[in-house]
Amino acid sequence: MSETPPLLPAIEPLAFLVGTWRGEGRGAYPSIEPFTYVEEIEFWHIGKPFLGYHQRTKHADTGLPLHTESGFWRVASPPDSPGAIVVEATITQPTGVCEVLVGPLEHQHIDLRAIEVVRTPTAKEVTEVERILTVVGDELRYEVAMAAVGHELRPHLEALLHRVA
Amino acid sequence: MSETPPLLPAIEPLAFLVGTWRGEGRGAYPSIEPFTYVEEIEFWHIGKPFLGYHQRTKHADTGLPLHTESGFWRVASPPDSPGAIVVEATITQPTGVCEVLVGPLEHQHIDLRAIEVVRTPTAKEVTEVERILTVVGDELRYEVAMAAVGHELRPHLEALLHRVA
Repeated sequence: MSETPPLLPAIEPLAFLVGTWRGEGRGAYPSIEPFTYVEEIEFWHIGKPFLGYHQRTKHADTGLPLHTESGFWRVASPPDSPGAIVVEATITQPTGVCEVLVGPLEHQHIDLRAIEVVRTPTAKEVTEVERILTVVGDELRYEVAMAAVGHELRPHLEALLHRVA
Repeated sequence: MSETPPLLPAIEPLAFLVGTWRGEGRGAYPSIEPFTYVEEIEFWHIGKPFLGYHQRTKHADTGLPLHTESGFWRVASPPDSPGAIVVEATITQPTGVCEVLVGPLEHQHIDLRAIEVVRTPTAKEVTEVERILTVVGDELRYEVAMAAVGHELRPHLEALLHRVA
């Protein structure tokens, strides 16, 4: 079920994300030991007004799978103001957490903040999420901050990836 | 980044889902014209205590992409009662909707009800979702009911798929 339709104008502002990215990151949080990871991110589309998003990480030393998450990114239309492009993302994690994020896109820099974080009954408590993503040339950098398990919003992940496809 | 680790005991109750399923379905809702679709569903795992879930549909007549959604399915542990297996799922849709669903698994029949439905500012209103899924042999049947855009909970989708991998 593969096809390569043209990217719709509605998500042209997100065209710089489409492709496959690989790189490395590191994570920390008061409740866990700091760790490093290797990561692959894919942004894909099917000719509809959204991008699909999927990523997987492995432990940098052991190669064991660490995390994966999936979701969809859209361009809010109509935007709040003529000069700003607003991105909406939904992201779900296998830890039982779903995020609905909203934020501005400027010059291939997206600053998302969760307006909703919901979770399954057995998931760990996560109450706030911020995700900042910047693409410069073939480099994608992101940072994730999180308020979880009783801690205030603080840095959790940062990574640098390169476009491979 | 592919591997085929063993399925963890924690999600052994969901082993019957793992694989690729193809088939056909039909959809209806008061706000749209009835439609039929072809679908591919994949349940996958990476040796961690969850299943990844991804599906795509195409219009049965035109072949154009209709819908896609992604998420993760887990077995709640410890279960509420010794005799019941409780499944938790998080599912996100490119329409800007995220669902957190919970429900019992019995004899390869899962009856999920959303305990949370959240959405982006520009998404259509969806307030309730029920998803029933049954596997008998190589056949997977599901039904989705939805309360959306002012309507009470009512049937939206039903489909029959066969295991292809």
